[in-house]
Amino acid sequence: MTIDFEGWACPLPLRDTPAIVMGHGGGGAMSGDLINHLFLPAFGDVALTDSAVVTAGTARLAFSTDSFVVRPMFFPGGSIGDLAVNGTVNDLAMSGATPLYLSAAFILQEGTPLPAVGRIATAMGEAARAAGVRLVTGDTKVVDFDSGDGVYVTTTGIGLVADGVDLGPHRATAGDAVLVSGPLGVHGVAVLSCRQGLEFGTEVRSDTAPLHGLVAAMLATGADVHTLRDPTRGGLAATLNEIAGAAKLGVELVERDLPVPAEVADACHLLGLDPLQVANEGKLVALVPPDQADRVLAAMREHPYGRDACRIGVCVAEHPGMVVARTGLGGTRVVTMPIGEQLPRIC
Amino acid sequence: MTIDFEGWACPLPLRDTPAIVMGHGGGGAMSGDLINHLFLPAFGDVALTDSAVVTAGTARLAFSTDSFVVRPMFFPGGSIGDLAVNGTVNDLAMSGATPLYLSAAFILQEGTPLPAVGRIATAMGEAARAAGVRLVTGDTKVVDFDSGDGVYVTTTGIGLVADGVDLGPHRATAGDAVLVSGPLGVHGVAVLSCRQGLEFGTEVRSDTAPLHGLVAAMLATGADVHTLRDPTRGGLAATLNEIAGAAKLGVELVERDLPVPAEVADACHLLGLDPLQVANEGKLVALVPPDQADRVLAAMREHPYGRDACRIGVCVAEHPGMVVARTGLGGTRVVTMPIGEQLPRIC
Repeated sequence: MTIDFEGWACPLPLRDTPAIVMGHGGGGAMSGDLINHLFLPAFGDVALTDSAVVTAGTARLAFSTDSFVVRPMFFPGGSIGDLAVNGTVNDLAMSGATPLYLSAAFILQEGTPLPAVGRIATAMGEAARAAGVRLVTGDTKVVDFDSGDGVYVTTTGIGLVADGVDLGPHRATAGDAVLVSGPLGVHGVAVLSCRQGLEFGTEVRSDTAPLHGLVAAMLATGADVHTLRDPTRGGLAATLNEIAGAAKLGVELVERDLPVPAEVADACHLLGLDPLQVANEGKLVALVPPDQADRVLAAMREHPYGRDACRIGVCVAEHPGMVVARTGLGGTRVVTMPIGEQLPRIC
Repeated sequence: MTIDFEGWACPLPLRDTPAIVMGHGGGGAMSGDLINHLFLPAFGDVALTDSAVVTAGTARLAFSTDSFVVRPMFFPGGSIGDLAVNGTVNDLAMSGATPLYLSAAFILQEGTPLPAVGRIATAMGEAARAAGVRLVTGDTKVVDFDSGDGVYVTTTGIGLVADGVDLGPHRATAGDAVLVSGPLGVHGVAVLSCRQGLEFGTEVRSDTAPLHGLVAAMLATGADVHTLRDPTRGGLAATLNEIAGAAKLGVELVERDLPVPAEVADACHLLGLDPLQVANEGKLVALVPPDQADRVLAAMREHPYGRDACRIGVCVAEHPGMVVARTGLGGTRVVTMPIGEQLPRIC
């Protein structure tokens, strides 16, 4: 199928849809399709990554951008403002960078109460100060009432990457221990719990937090950390499938070791969601050589954002590109890449 | 008037509106209010500029972000894709930087035809190659059909600023010649000419173009260029008023020297617009010491994007913060800062 649009021919295979659907924003397989089959060919000879490491003059920089469209804008434990700062800080941190500067570009819906904008901006200022980054440049656009929804904000960050630091899926190795910094699925459940038409009682609050301090503590152990990722949209399932695909390795999880809090498990059961696909905003996944894993885990547990860090699995040479989980009954299930969007507009 | 919003008190004076209106996105006085009275106090001790010059390691970087929401997305002479690349390239160039890297963050409306997204991405790739910058990182979010409008794209750029280069309103000096690189108001009229409900016949095409090559040619003359700005939203009027306000200088224009093409003048007359407030996307304004202005003008005219460069006025010590134009009849009129939004969603 090829769709003509005034001379522009769509280079499928994009899944069999002629238009954008919510799933294209889910961080799963459909998002991957859009990037690999539409943006990459259009942009030409580039490697688009969540956080690019580039050279400017003599400096090694990490550079990352994210748009935030979460609804509602205020939720238990945070707001779109915290999320926008912490999300970009964390993308930089996953490159091993020290985050330095942020930009903020707003697309405001006509009619948005000024105090709502103010509360979000205040949250951004506080989150930036807490993370030790400076908001130095910005932009504001306004769109008509029927073309927006409150506040959308795009933050972009610059961080400094020290010489010798090289993190990424390309360094993942069979045998690497898979570590996670704490309980999974908390942000997604917190946002869902207050979404219109879906309110349910829960004590769960978003885990939104800046993780560069935790990363610094992990690197300070001297361990040769191979890969770091923050499992946001698409959750742990999307993150590990991405790493497995890029590294051409398999990943084996032990299901009973996965730190899914009871409240998250209950909410997911109720809503028919897979907690491994639910977004986190203050968690990281690390791949570390097995003999160094205990040292890294100990350092993580010393840090406020890694207190409940644990080992959840191992990288294997078998079934490259595939993530599996050993179940309590001794069987194995495949942890699939989410296709589309389980929870639209979660970040 | 103070509006309470769950504990957040709005630090007025924001103009007497409790909510965002289109004018807050116009690049004029209302945009300034929002920045100065809402974002700046919220973000804390920062100086937000269109293009920040920051230090990372040993590198001097320019860093700039812009969201693009122009409608229609395709217009005579370009598209939102070109605009998004050239707009950010130009913000970097106005700091005297060599643009290096761009990020692109998309907010897509559910239901947007994939080929439209593809055509925009293709335009971005082509514009990036033409400007010699690399698109290295990105993000895609999708919003519901009634919360978006096709494609919004936020580009953020990093450029390298050579040692010794220092451009900005702080360097403007009484006596500086005011130069402009070519005809004014072209982009705005081109976009308006194909806007729904407003179609009118015109040959005018958007002037969207990357200006860093022109800037390099100007700096290569060795002249001590003081200030560069691209007069986008709010047009020449907003740009010169901003400079005059920041530099605490007056600006005196000579009305008959202003290069407003007949087609632009006609369209503005028809629509009741002031051509000095209409957006440009491939023009720059330069403040240059008077004895060096001819040399800079000559270099500009050698460059494809400065062929029609001309001198339009002078900076003066009188009436600081105010821009005036000497009229053909020998009188003087004040060129005011646009308050709100003459042409919503022009970029």
